[in-house]
Amino acid sequence: MDGSGLLGVNEVRQAQVDGVLDRFFSLAKNRAAAFGPEYVRLWEELQASAAGGKRFRPRMVFSAYQSLGGTDLEAAAYIGAAFELLHTALIVHDDVIDHDFVRRGIPNVSGVYRDQALANGATEKAAEHRGISAAVIAGDLALFNAYRLIDRSGVADITRDRLVEVMDDALFASAAGELIDVDFSHLTDMPRVDDILTMERLKTAVYSFECPLQAGAILAGAPEQIIATLADFGREIGVAYQIVDDLLGVFGQESETGKTTIGDLREGKRTVLISYATTTQEWAEIEPLIGKRDLTESEADRVRELLIDTGARAFAEGLARYYANRALSRLAEAHVPATLRDELIPIADAVLGRVK
Amino acid sequence: MDGSGLLGVNEVRQAQVDGVLDRFFSLAKNRAAAFGPEYVRLWEELQASAAGGKRFRPRMVFSAYQSLGGTDLEAAAYIGAAFELLHTALIVHDDVIDHDFVRRGIPNVSGVYRDQALANGATEKAAEHRGISAAVIAGDLALFNAYRLIDRSGVADITRDRLVEVMDDALFASAAGELIDVDFSHLTDMPRVDDILTMERLKTAVYSFECPLQAGAILAGAPEQIIATLADFGREIGVAYQIVDDLLGVFGQESETGKTTIGDLREGKRTVLISYATTTQEWAEIEPLIGKRDLTESEADRVRELLIDTGARAFAEGLARYYANRALSRLAEAHVPATLRDELIPIADAVLGRVK
Repeated sequence: MDGSGLLGVNEVRQAQVDGVLDRFFSLAKNRAAAFGPEYVRLWEELQASAAGGKRFRPRMVFSAYQSLGGTDLEAAAYIGAAFELLHTALIVHDDVIDHDFVRRGIPNVSGVYRDQALANGATEKAAEHRGISAAVIAGDLALFNAYRLIDRSGVADITRDRLVEVMDDALFASAAGELIDVDFSHLTDMPRVDDILTMERLKTAVYSFECPLQAGAILAGAPEQIIATLADFGREIGVAYQIVDDLLGVFGQESETGKTTIGDLREGKRTVLISYATTTQEWAEIEPLIGKRDLTESEADRVRELLIDTGARAFAEGLARYYANRALSRLAEAHVPATLRDELIPIADAVLGRVK
Repeated sequence: MDGSGLLGVNEVRQAQVDGVLDRFFSLAKNRAAAFGPEYVRLWEELQASAAGGKRFRPRMVFSAYQSLGGTDLEAAAYIGAAFELLHTALIVHDDVIDHDFVRRGIPNVSGVYRDQALANGATEKAAEHRGISAAVIAGDLALFNAYRLIDRSGVADITRDRLVEVMDDALFASAAGELIDVDFSHLTDMPRVDDILTMERLKTAVYSFECPLQAGAILAGAPEQIIATLADFGREIGVAYQIVDDLLGVFGQESETGKTTIGDLREGKRTVLISYATTTQEWAEIEPLIGKRDLTESEADRVRELLIDTGARAFAEGLARYYANRALSRLAEAHVPATLRDELIPIADAVLGRVK
């Protein structure tokens, strides 16, 4: 057994993407040093935001690329890193919009700067301002450089242009989805199931699944038909993923997901699960508990019970399966190479497996 | 006299840049229509933010480009429009950071969305949230597309790569300057004159003067020596411009500048003018009036009087002249073509002319 055998294929891919990001941030920090230590620190915080993720979007790029015969792993790592940096930009700015200072239990960019200002004796308001300001700036830098990483991938011009178009599509959709999400947060009524699905597709599924898979196929020089099929697969599986994510936000195991199962209920997150429940008799009992800031664990248990009794949980699980099946049916088409099918079926299974 | 003779050279250039931006926004709005009317509206508001400016940065691009022999005015208009869109992105996000809902007397993106939410019965807090969220998203779209306009300019690859590097430098410096500015706003002491100059150079002068002039020269295929001289000229004249801008913010004619002459005093803006005053005996009388939210017109008059008496105004004017002279001295170098000199000397004169 040689050294590389000690690592699975995903670990190898992730290490390659991490390598690209490490080099990118090292260069940026060196360059920032000429502007003073505070600027270096902002880059360090941005790097911290980009670290520790599952490298989900790069994995989509690699899955499409390698199973379609691509062999330039360095180029794929750059394109994957570009989508990872886009993701970082979007979550940093999403946290600004949501006024969140914590992500997955640890302070985000806004949180780090806010906490430091508080420690230095700033008022709550001034400290939050400093935190949010730093996050606006950091997100801008990440966004701009997502594009730059495509430039630095060394891919030839026509391919580069297409990859940039795909990233443009990703941001264009995500901004539209974010806008809808902001509008949702100001509604008193719960949006309809299909409106929530549209929002989740635009805000997250397009840039996390559809576009990275397309990018991998374009990089591999795949035929247009395959690129289109991958986009369709990505869109459908991405929606399934979001529904599952919302299910895990209420019914998941915190130890597995790293995400609390009470946060979504306390903030009254608009999900398919909750939207379905509004149409049931039990809604009268559920409603006052959704968005209740001081929801207790026992109240949360009661909501979970009711979401099961009303069939909301089963409905959401069924919907996730429906989208996953739609995704899988695209892979059954004759023009899809077996290697691609073998790569993507486990991804679809893994998405559904999260709620099993 | 033919038709084109009716318009001055700046009007022709501006019309060309406006044409590029109009086409860009038309395309974006058509594309946004598939995502619903609210998204089209966000693009309309972003377009409104990009409209009505002096097209200052495009003028720098054209000045360098045409006086160095460039003749592809369409390409120059694209590069100019790219810097204009970068400027739009930066001011939209700067307003988010400063919690400003108005720019030059009219509601900005945040303001339009906030006011609409208020009209629909939202609370102040919810309305502000909606306004700021829309502005974060709009700024992201503008930032990303600033880059895209360079791509769409049709310039050849090596030139394109260099132009993108220049825009990267512009954002990199501006983010550093914005971070310093945020730090300033949390200081109790007034920063030193040289720290303010550094901040203003990074935050504004680099992306408004240095980089657009460099970009014009690169596009014209100018020798490296000329590109470097233009960068130096731009950096120096840009700092002069900022000092003059701060002077006009206190001593200007509102009818000419479109900017109130009490706003900067009320918000306690950190400027060379005020920083100088801190070192004088009169500071004890000035200090309580700086950053006084309800400063009256007669108190503002008193501050102006004191800023004149202490020599702060004369110092700032002298400093602006010093930077303008440094800029002009670069143009005296032997390798600078007369056409370039003839184009840039009036720009330096115009910068200083604003305080005469």
